[in-house]
Amino acid sequence: MNGSIIRYILGSVVKIEGAFLFLPCLVAVCFGECEGFVYLGMSAFCILLGTVLTWRKPSNTVFYLKEGCVSTALSWIILSLFGAVPFFITGEIPSYTDALFETVSGFTTTGASILSDVEALSHTSLFWRSFTHWIGGMGVLVFLLAVIPMTGGSHMNLMRAESPGPSVGKLVPKVKTTARILYLIYLGMTVLEIILLLAGKMPLFDSLCISFGTAGTGGFGIRNDSLASYSPYLQWVVTVFMILFGVNFNLYYLLLFRQVKKALSMEEVRCYFLVIFTSSLIIFMSLLHTTANTFKALTDACFQVASIITTTGFSTVDFQQWSETCHTVLVMIMFIGACAGSTGGGIKVSRFVILVKSLIKELVSYIHPKSIQKIKMDGKTVEHEVLRATNVFFVTFILVFSASVLAVSVDDFDLITNFTAVAATINNIGPGLAAVGPTCNFGIFSNFSKYVLMFDMLAGRLELFPLLILFHPAIWKDMFTKHRRRKKSSEN
Amino acid sequence: MNGSIIRYILGSVVKIEGAFLFLPCLVAVCFGECEGFVYLGMSAFCILLGTVLTWRKPSNTVFYLKEGCVSTALSWIILSLFGAVPFFITGEIPSYTDALFETVSGFTTTGASILSDVEALSHTSLFWRSFTHWIGGMGVLVFLLAVIPMTGGSHMNLMRAESPGPSVGKLVPKVKTTARILYLIYLGMTVLEIILLLAGKMPLFDSLCISFGTAGTGGFGIRNDSLASYSPYLQWVVTVFMILFGVNFNLYYLLLFRQVKKALSMEEVRCYFLVIFTSSLIIFMSLLHTTANTFKALTDACFQVASIITTTGFSTVDFQQWSETCHTVLVMIMFIGACAGSTGGGIKVSRFVILVKSLIKELVSYIHPKSIQKIKMDGKTVEHEVLRATNVFFVTFILVFSASVLAVSVDDFDLITNFTAVAATINNIGPGLAAVGPTCNFGIFSNFSKYVLMFDMLAGRLELFPLLILFHPAIWKDMFTKHRRRKKSSEN
Repeated sequence: MNGSIIRYILGSVVKIEGAFLFLPCLVAVCFGECEGFVYLGMSAFCILLGTVLTWRKPSNTVFYLKEGCVSTALSWIILSLFGAVPFFITGEIPSYTDALFETVSGFTTTGASILSDVEALSHTSLFWRSFTHWIGGMGVLVFLLAVIPMTGGSHMNLMRAESPGPSVGKLVPKVKTTARILYLIYLGMTVLEIILLLAGKMPLFDSLCISFGTAGTGGFGIRNDSLASYSPYLQWVVTVFMILFGVNFNLYYLLLFRQVKKALSMEEVRCYFLVIFTSSLIIFMSLLHTTANTFKALTDACFQVASIITTTGFSTVDFQQWSETCHTVLVMIMFIGACAGSTGGGIKVSRFVILVKSLIKELVSYIHPKSIQKIKMDGKTVEHEVLRATNVFFVTFILVFSASVLAVSVDDFDLITNFTAVAATINNIGPGLAAVGPTCNFGIFSNFSKYVLMFDMLAGRLELFPLLILFHPAIWKDMFTKHRRRKKSSEN
Repeated sequence: MNGSIIRYILGSVVKIEGAFLFLPCLVAVCFGECEGFVYLGMSAFCILLGTVLTWRKPSNTVFYLKEGCVSTALSWIILSLFGAVPFFITGEIPSYTDALFETVSGFTTTGASILSDVEALSHTSLFWRSFTHWIGGMGVLVFLLAVIPMTGGSHMNLMRAESPGPSVGKLVPKVKTTARILYLIYLGMTVLEIILLLAGKMPLFDSLCISFGTAGTGGFGIRNDSLASYSPYLQWVVTVFMILFGVNFNLYYLLLFRQVKKALSMEEVRCYFLVIFTSSLIIFMSLLHTTANTFKALTDACFQVASIITTTGFSTVDFQQWSETCHTVLVMIMFIGACAGSTGGGIKVSRFVILVKSLIKELVSYIHPKSIQKIKMDGKTVEHEVLRATNVFFVTFILVFSASVLAVSVDDFDLITNFTAVAATINNIGPGLAAVGPTCNFGIFSNFSKYVLMFDMLAGRLELFPLLILFHPAIWKDMFTKHRRRKKSSEN
């Protein structure tokens, strides 16, 4: 294990976090809030610590998938540990566990909150809370790749560990350029949403926070009723942008370079829209039974479906009150999630497309046992390795999910609460059903359950394996034996 | 598609059912119940119809996996359709849909009932209801293989379609001998249980019915409180036999031929006992919080765990009242199910062992990307084909499961009811939680939902694909084009 490069990456991440922590200070100046000093202090501390950690350049820049996974997992944990400090020091969240929960929820773009009264927070903290979504959405290591010069040709292992989806495609041959293009598209779309929200007479501060939450598919609201009190125009803008941020970013890249035909033929994106359309229709039909206001039913159905499938988690209505068919649809799209290569979470549409195709292939093999079939996607054969990884991912997901539900059940809440609490965190959504429904919060859980759910949020965001390998003894053995060996050789 | 051999097999199955239907008549004679005439008539009808169908021997005895699956699926459907008739004609279950539900539940060894008052049934019908479990447990086609002389060397395709588990092993080179050995072990263990129950002063009729339910891991009780009113001795006998019938029958074969060492090293069986032990322990600890009677807590915990993991579904207590941790454990072992090659349902322990091993393999591949690892079971490498089939099975299972929960949700019961109703039927267990808990029944559902649940029961018993291929258009196209071609050629 190359420990020095991991140290260097972690140092860079802390430095970047320090820089990001400076932004809330500006908000504090605008609103004249003294909480800004806490953020300023934390910013300085992070920059200092990061500079110390990155002082000595790593002697060896060789970088394997193993190092990629470990540094990704540790980066996200450290980001959250430091990001939670201001909430705790300002006293706005009195328990550090709760502050950490809120921050993990922010960075992983989950949006599950332990706060019952969001509006009591200072503007400074509200801004930082929403901004963590924006940082987490595209991934902080992708940001690192985009802005920091790194030597060696193994960037891909870092990107592979952090990017969602069954297989990672580089848009252009250089990883660094890919990362930059991704961040530019991300920034551009966020700015566009801010402008459109401002056009609908939303205050600037609200527009910023809501846009960060939409872009990262996070879901922290800044009002206690999430987005219910905004106008239908604003709700529709957010609906559209949630859906757009859940699309595979390759689509935008293709559109940018005028490959419209190729963009429109992406199977994953087509399925994604098909699922959104079908789910919205089912819920819309179900809502019509109880309301006479067709437009409101349509708005509510589309908003909630967009919010859940993209794993954003904003809400404009208490869907706990909806029919059981609606609940079932919502729980199902919780797991489907957004497209691979988007900022959304969940199992990802492309994985489901692959899995359903392998099901059909199996059926055909019963009928024509000797026929040789290949699973294709976008006209290309899906490699055996991708197929295998998709299967293993799905199985691991279900196993981690079940273990978490069992662990959380010690709090003795009902099964729906436990089931949807884990579903809402491992899929990075936010609200669940029953005691964790859209009008409730996660403060009800014990500290033990909160740590389980934090683990789930990180596991969901990092797509399981980068986090799970931290639990493999070989990683730590490796880290320490190498270290000792190096020490020995330097003594000789 | 070889239609004539399918006709021949279906005819044989109907004939066997006719023979089996004669047994309730004997019960009717003992208890002097006039319901016996209905069973006698139905028995005669089935034997007559079966004789007509098997009159002409199939000209072509070539038999592929496709034919194996189609005839298995159709056999089970026909068995249920005819088996339900007596319940309907005697008027004991006034709706044919309900009668069919009860019969499908019987043959698939589910044990989910639509009856609120079981004790109102005649002894004749109670006997037939429990006897369907015994027929379904080992599989009627395995019985067919054991008793009827069939030509051609493709028996294996029939056995493969009906037997549970990721891969089918023949105990001895000849399929026919394998089937006979299996049925002999099955019969022997059933008789042993009957004797032990009689020794505990259970009436003969009860012993027979309960033993049939245990042997097939079915779960139809003959009292309204299932097994709650029997003595602890009887409950323990049933507990032990439920666990024994959930063991892979290969173990008994190995023990019979004194290969004790090989038998004890079967990984699946070890894991099965480990899961039973752990689950019982968790539930036992949880029950100790609420009761002072340690022995009762132990009896209840072990009985319910054995009943659920082996997918039998008897109950001695209303576990709906237990803590949420207990519920979660029960729901998890619902899905794990019994061993492959047993009479139990569920996903099967061996599949989980394979899946967990592939998870660990994946983790190691992140740490040592170049190492070549093989997944082993009982010292032998798991073939790639088995691994692939296990993955596809798991994925298909989850997809069918989700679709069923969505379909059932139209009845607007709560999510737990829908979720556990589907879990209890697709895993062939019986009782679920909430409105389908051990003290409730499935009569609450609409006819539409009942058909969905019947589909799930059959899909679970036949392990999905043999039933699913009936929905593939190629099967029916094949059936009719071949038929037409043959007609044409005979005209020329």
